[in-house]
Formats: sequence, C-alpha cells, structure tokens
Amino acid sequence: MRLFAGCDMSLMASEPCPTVAMLRPRSGMAQWLASESYQFDPPVRPTEYVDAYGNLCQRFEIAPGPMRIRWSAIVDTDDVISVEPNARATPVGQLPDEALQFMLQSRYCPSDKMVDQALRIAGGLPAGYAQVEAVRAWVHQNIAYRYGVSSATTDAIDTLNAQAGVCRDFSHIGISFCRALRIPARMVVGYLYQLDPMDLHAWFEAYIGGRWYTFDATQDQPRGGRIVVAYGRDAADVAFISNYGGLTTTSLKAWVQLDNSRPLF
Amino acid sequence: MRLFAGCDMSLMASEPCPTVAMLRPRSGMAQWLASESYQFDPPVRPTEYVDAYGNLCQRFEIAPGPMRIRWSAIVDTDDVISVEPNARATPVGQLPDEALQFMLQSRYCPSDKMVDQALRIAGGLPAGYAQVEAVRAWVHQNIAYRYGVSSATTDAIDTLNAQAGVCRDFSHIGISFCRALRIPARMVVGYLYQLDPMDLHAWFEAYIGGRWYTFDATQDQPRGGRIVVAYGRDAADVAFISNYGGLTTTSLKAWVQLDNSRPLF
Amino acid sequence: MRLFAGCDMSLMASEPCPTVAMLRPRSGMAQWLASESYQFDPPVRPTEYVDAYGNLCQRFEIAPGPMRIRWSAIVDTDDVISVEPNARATPVGQLPDEALQFMLQSRYCPSDKMVDQALRIAGGLPAGYAQVEAVRAWVHQNIAYRYGVSSATTDAIDTLNAQAGVCRDFSHIGISFCRALRIPARMVVGYLYQLDPMDLHAWFEAYIGGRWYTFDATQDQPRGGRIVVAYGRDAADVAFISNYGGLTTTSLKAWVQLDNSRPLF
Amino acid sequence: MRLFAGCDMSLMASEPCPTVAMLRPRSGMAQWLASESYQFDPPVRPTEYVDAYGNLCQRFEIAPGPMRIRWSAIVDTDDVISVEPNARATPVGQLPDEALQFMLQSRYCPSDKMVDQALRIAGGLPAGYAQVEAVRAWVHQNIAYRYGVSSATTDAIDTLNAQAGVCRDFSHIGISFCRALRIPARMVVGYLYQLDPMDLHAWFEAYIGGRWYTFDATQDQPRGGRIVVAYGRDAADVAFISNYGGLTTTSLKAWVQLDNSRPLF
Repeated sequence: MRLFAGCDMSLMASEPCPTVAMLRPRSGMAQWLASESYQFDPPVRPTEYVDAYGNLCQRFEIAPGPMRIRWSAIVDTDDVISVEPNARATPVGQLPDEALQFMLQSRYCPSDKMVDQALRIAGGLPAGYAQVEAVRAWVHQNIAYRYGVSSATTDAIDTLNAQAGVCRDFSHIGISFCRALRIPARMVVGYLYQLDPMDLHAWFEAYIGGRWYTFDATQDQPRGGRIVVAYGRDAADVAFISNYGGLTTTSLKAWVQLDNSRPLF
Repeated sequence: MRLFAGCDMSLMASEPCPTVAMLRPRSGMAQWLASESYQFDPPVRPTEYVDAYGNLCQRFEIAPGPMRIRWSAIVDTDDVISVEPNARATPVGQLPDEALQFMLQSRYCPSDKMVDQALRIAGGLPAGYAQVEAVRAWVHQNIAYRYGVSSATTDAIDTLNAQAGVCRDFSHIGISFCRALRIPARMVVGYLYQLDPMDLHAWFEAYIGGRWYTFDATQDQPRGGRIVVAYGRDAADVAFISNYGGLTTTSLKAWVQLDNSRPLF
Repeated sequence: MRLFAGCDMSLMASEPCPTVAMLRPRSGMAQWLASESYQFDPPVRPTEYVDAYGNLCQRFEIAPGPMRIRWSAIVDTDDVISVEPNARATPVGQLPDEALQFMLQSRYCPSDKMVDQALRIAGGLPAGYAQVEAVRAWVHQNIAYRYGVSSATTDAIDTLNAQAGVCRDFSHIGISFCRALRIPARMVVGYLYQLDPMDLHAWFEAYIGGRWYTFDATQDQPRGGRIVVAYGRDAADVAFISNYGGLTTTSLKAWVQLDNSRPLF
Repeated sequence: MRLFAGCDMSLMASEPCPTVAMLRPRSGMAQWLASESYQFDPPVRPTEYVDAYGNLCQRFEIAPGPMRIRWSAIVDTDDVISVEPNARATPVGQLPDEALQFMLQSRYCPSDKMVDQALRIAGGLPAGYAQVEAVRAWVHQNIAYRYGVSSATTDAIDTLNAQAGVCRDFSHIGISFCRALRIPARMVVGYLYQLDPMDLHAWFEAYIGGRWYTFDATQDQPRGGRIVVAYGRDAADVAFISNYGGLTTTSLKAWVQLDNSRPLF
C-alpha cells in the first residue's frame, strides 16, 4: 500500500544542543520512499552517517530556543506481514554473521536472566516461528497496554513485574524471550497504519528459517502497513532524538494515511 | 543556496533488464536534501544498497517496454567551493586509509602511464593544491569541450590524443595526473547550477591538506551550486544507470534551478 | 615491549555446540603480532568475521566430547599507556560518528540510572581526563577486588551495591560513570603483563581530547604491557567464548611473559 | 592439506618510504592460519586496515636503507578446488550486492572492449561454469607463459596482442572475458602448492550458481593447495607492496611446503 506518513515535532533548547536524530527510514530496505521531505525551522545543515545497524543518523546542533523538525514521506510498503507458522529456527551455526549480535543480552533486554520464564512459555513448542508467536501472544495477553507505567529506564523485567507498559516495553519482553530461546531478535521503530491512538511505534523482528519476520505484541492481528525507521538491539539504539544538553520536546504529532493522490509526475 | 534539481529519463527495455541506478544523492554528506521524489512509471519497488564508495545504489528489474524514471529534490548546498591555493599535499603516510584507493590507477585513469606528463605540467610546483590547480587549468586550456569525440571506452590517454572530450573525459585526465603526482583523486558525478548546456555533470576531487577539494576542468571559475550524486575511482564506478540487458535511453532531461519557493511547512 | 602471551583452554561439549570465539587480537590496531598460533584439538576449520566493533570473531562447531583451544602470540605493544591529566572532553558535536554508540547505556552499564552518582564523584572537575581519572580512582578505592561476588548477570549497579567484584565489574562501573558524564567509554578485554594473579583481563577506554585513553580501575598505576583482544559496549559484546549449547570450560590457563627470544628470522 | 608457506623479501629504500603491504591472508575466509609470523628487520610497528574488498593491509614507513620483511604461516586449506561443470550463471538480478562491482571494467580488465571476442569463445555455451571453463581453457591454450613480455602497465588487451604473459596477465584476460559475458569475476593473489617455478601467484574466481569458483588459466588441472592473500578487481587492487617513494626490491623468495610437523601444542 502507499502511505503518507510523517511526524512534526517542536523542541526547545535551553543551551546549544548537539543532537542525533533517527527520523529518516532507509529507502529500499523494508520499503520504498517515493517522496520525502525533511526540514528544520530554523534551518540547519545536518551531516548523516550510517550506524552499526545500518540506520541513517542525522547530526546537527540546535541553537538555544525553539526548533521545529518535520519529516514526511510517501512510502510504498507491504499490505500484510509474512506469517509462516511452520518456519523452523535457523540453527545457530547457520545464522548469518550479522544476526549473531541480536542473540546477545542488552540494556532493556536482559535475556540472560529470563531463560526460565521463556522456556515455561515456549519451551515445549517446535523451535522457531511457533515459539516466537507464543511469546508474542503471551505478552499480548498478559501485559496491559498503559501509558505512564514505564519510563526511559524500564527494562523487560521491570515491565514483567509491572504487568503493564507501552509498545516499547512489549517489544523488550518479546525480544528478551526470543534471545533466551536462542532466536535472534531485534527492535524496530517506525510507523504503523491505523495504529490507535496514532503515535510513533515500536515492534520486533525475529530471525527464523533464514529471514526476519515481524511480530507486534501490541496487536492481535498480523497487520502490515509498516514503515521501518530503525533497527537496534533495543530502545537504547533507536531513539528518534538523542540529545546531549537541555533539550525538551514541547509537542510531537505523528500521522500515517493512505495516500490516494495521483502519481507525483 | 537552495536548488531544485532533477532528471527525467525515458528508457525502453527489449527484454527483462536487471538494473542498478545511482540517481539518489547521499543526503547529509556534501549537501542536505530538504525534500526528494524518486518515482517509476510503471511502478517498481527497488532495493537499495551502499556500495564500496558509500554511494546509494537502487536495484530493480525493468520489464519489457517503456520505463520512465523521475528523480528530483530540493537541496541545500554550498554557494561556493573551497579554494586554498596554499594547501600542501598530505604526506602519503598520513592519508586516511580510505583515501589510499584513490591513488590507484583505474579503467579510465591509467595514471601509471602518465607520470612523465604530469611532472612536466606540475612537477615544479609546491606539492598540493597548486599542482592540482595547474593540472585543472592545463586541461581547461588544452582540451576542447566537444561532444561526439569520446565514447564509453575512451580513457584519459585517448582524450589526451584526441585533444577533445566532455566533462567525464576532462575529469579522467585531471584524476590521472593527480594520482601520477601521488595525490588521491576521485570522480564525482552530479548536478551543477547554471551548467550550460544543462546536463548531468562530472568533475573531480583531490585530497589535499587533510580534506577533499573540488576541481572542475570544464569551468574557468571555482563555482559552487553542486549536488554530488556519487563518488568513484572513475566513470566505471558511477554510471547513473547500469543495466545488463537490452535497455536503451530514449530521452533524458536534467535541470537545476534556484528554489525560491516558500519553506515546505 | 615484546610479550609472549596466550591462553590454553579445555572445554567439554555434551552436544554439538555452535561456538563463537573472540580470542585473536586485531594486529596493527593497538599492537603488532610478530607471530601467532591458534590451534584446535581436535582440529576444526573456523570461519572468521569482523563484528560491528571491528573485532575478529571465529565461528566453528564443537563436536560432543573434549576440545582444547590454544592461542598464543609474540606481540609488540606499548611499555606505558598515555596519561594526559589536562586533556579536555571532546564536545559531543565533534565526536567521531563511531564514538557515539559508546555514549549509550548497555546491558551491564545502565548509565541512564547512574547520572547523579557520577556527578557527585566527578561533576565538579574539568570535563575530560580529570573526570575519568576521578572515576577510576573512586572505583579503585571503593570497590573491593574479590572473586565469587559477581556472576554473568551482575551489572554496574549490582556491583556498586555489593561493593566488590572483579575486573569486569570494575570496568562496568567506570564505563557507566563516563557515559553518565557524556564521555564515550568502551570495554576492553585482553592481557596485562604482570597482572597478579595472571588471568584474562578487562579494563576500559574513554574518548577524550580526540582519542581513546586507557583506564584500569583494578590497578593503582597506569601500567602498559597490554594486549587488546576485543572492544565492546560492555561484557555482553566481548565474551571470549560464546556458545549455544552444552559447553563447559574445564580448565583455562593464561600467560603473559616478556619475550627475550632472538628475532624469529 | 596443511601447508607451510611464506615469503622473504629484501627491499632498499633511498628515502623514507610510506608503504602499504598486503602480505597477510585473511584467516577464516578461504583458509585457516594455524600459526603465522610476520616480521620486519629493522623492526616497525605497522597499523592495519581492511580495504574495500576485505583485504588486510599493513601500513608502515620504511626508513632509508635496507628492510627485510618475512611472512610465513602454517595454513589449513582445501586439497582440491570445487569443480561444477553444470553450475548455471546466477541471474544478474539475483547477484549479491557486493558481487556487482566485479562486473565492472577495470584498469587491467577493459571488459567493455572485449565483448565480441568473449562471445566468440564462449557465447554458444550454457551461461555459467561452462563458459568460464571455456575461457580458462582458451587462455591456457592460446597464451604462452613467458616472463619478460609484460610489465606493470600491461592490460588484458595488450596480453592478447602479445600472446604471452605471466599469471597476472592470464588472470586479467580470464576476468575480462567473464565480465564481458556478464559473470562477476575477481582477481586473487596468493600461494599455490607445487607451483613451478615457485613464486607468488595470481588466479581468478568467477561467481556462478550462488558462489565463487576458482579458475587458474596457468594450470591444466583444477589444483587445490591454494592460500588466498587478497582479492580485487584486478592487479591494481592487490599489489603485495605498494610504496610511494624510492623503494626497490632486491630479492624475493616464496615457498609452499607440505607441513608434516607435529601439532604445535
């Protein structure tokens, strides 16, 4: 489907703030950006680098005062995500080199402390898709979606204890259980069509049967219409805005709409 | 300055053609793309990879029949290029690792056969910017800009013999002489504001005094208003369209205009 | 100085174990390996890849039964580490792209939860080397070096609470405080000449004044004679042996000696 | 088979010479280095980087006077090379991204000028292994192996005209014809057991049926016992020693022996 998506954020800097933004999806990876706009008011000229996960990162300094950043794009993406209930786990010895890092415990996904519970939930199932789907369903059923319970320091175990959290927290639990089951799993942040309430979103992917599959513990259907902005080991790697100074977000609006406009040329 | 630039190409495929396009500039490197559009008619969903030089490459298959590709962007770029007549050559031992490959001879820049002539032109000058500028000026004065003299197989020595060529040929001579003088040099393809006649363009950069400087032997002034699409060792690395089948270009239009439109938001 | 260093480990596999080893230092980075030996009994033919941090990783499968791995090398390394008490923090906006990831919180270094304590220890000092040295000294004085207190799941906050740990734990605290102070810091594992008792070792580096400096909270002197095996965000990234099956280490011996042998040719 | 291979070279510098050496094979790629020695007399401390092709490159400066470099290793490598007469060409659209660069013309392999002859030799054969083998056999039969005919500036067309050359020249023709046939091909330099006369060697690989296959136009049998030191587009990329000053090689000895020694531990 063709989507028109974007975000419009207003920030306020109390001092000069070196900033790293991760707002631009990689076109030609999970999706194609037919058109894109990425603007700053007041204007800045960012530099951009590719991080260790292949994400595009924009660096710039925000001067004291207000800054508005608006990114939007018309994006061709898949209508549905792939579902393959019988896909078997890729044996560790056959994983591609670059998938191995997604087996490791990380800041918000202390999978090394979650093996027992992972085995209780999915240990009896065939290794692979069935296990990850069981994990996803377990999170969906056992963790309440609620704002205000979690914060920037909340990890997967904290969320298990609180039994509530938001998309980021749901993903951290899913990822942790996958890794505890020796299935590579990575965090995804981006946009989801018809997410309600609309916001920037997070979900996860698991490497099974030779490829990455999408899982979203906040949803009860395997819905497509996703725009991937960034991948990482967990939320620490994929902040939309990382700043190192006195920067506050005063407003943030995100949107995803079906785009029925005529072709742009 | 803020430019609105783009190209609109019509292709005709006589068979299914696997194609690699290099049409999208890397935003945040030499320039910032405030907005961009990259579309295909009929539509395709390219994948994209980053090649060994850091260029974005779009892969897709063109079905038999016509294909139109239109890329355009609003780009913030420098008004002028840096000129530093006294910049000294970076000693080879202090070159960054990634600059070393631009010292090597390549398909269209057989610098290993051009040392004597390079020394005659610039050997007596201080090693560095002065030499590259002497090379650039020599090419500008001694090679006639003329279409139809060169082809896809023409290398720098062929052009020296013909004493005529186009921007790509001018660049190949400049690059070859730089390398022969032990100065790293690389090919650049992209857009130049007020190029006359307007077309896709090529020039070169030389690594001097710890950074890359822009040189354009087709111009007699160090003009800015440049949009870099791709870097390479020579034209072999930076074809706008590489196809492996029966694909012909039926029309190509390129443009670069000052953009005086209101901010996009 | 020229060192002869190595390790000899005996493992026992209860099932076929896909394994990733990180035992081979990168020659020509922190040190030069004049000679090296890396052998397996029974023999295997590992493949090797470079991970996201530039480390060499060897992949192979261990068949059920015993496996002995012996790595050794004659290594030229620095006699002393650089000490620069007046080096100032590199402003975040000027950090190289690849240093930014070492500002992020990670599994064992939850720096996001340790800002207050970091500021208490070093907040009043000039930003840079002086702060990191204060952190290092604080850890050296306040954390007891003791085996058996920590485990594979112990993070920096756990160690602060326990007030005791080993080299890995000391490093995690040092790294966490640096990041909390907005100074990039990374984990280093390797060998240290005259470490007592001799073992594989861990320390950390901080990026200050445009380069990485070495800090070791287990030592009260800035001692050289170090062989770097791997870098990472924390211990999760730099396990000497990662296995995904029933593999146990039955013995491990490490050594570092001054090498006074004649040149090898 | 387990081989003991190495080279011992004596160089003479008339001035300080920044040098890049490519003498160390990548262990764990085509082969495993059970032990290795890489030494300099007088001693230097090289830095090392990985180039765009994945090769290990050692940088150092040679002071005026003599320099001896001796590299040797005990290497586990394959007894035979893979031969798959029925392997079909990988369709261009399915080639891995990183193979695409090996389709491009290069300094010594002007494949863009050699399409007609390539088609005459192999155009009628099934696309794939059969074509490359036909190319290899054609070169073996039609080009005489003779020292002194070619030099550092000789490209594949020069060698076709001279009808004689050495291993490097044979490889350049083979590579050029493959690329002209739209089959990715790359240069390999390294060691070959029982090469007669013994020397550093060069051959090529072609990407067919989803993997790289080895071809050596200097041999009439598909012999194994190969140690790969470096890959590149052609000889320009894989010089064993690149220097940028007055450096001459006064002697070079290479050797490859079966290693029947006892395990090293």
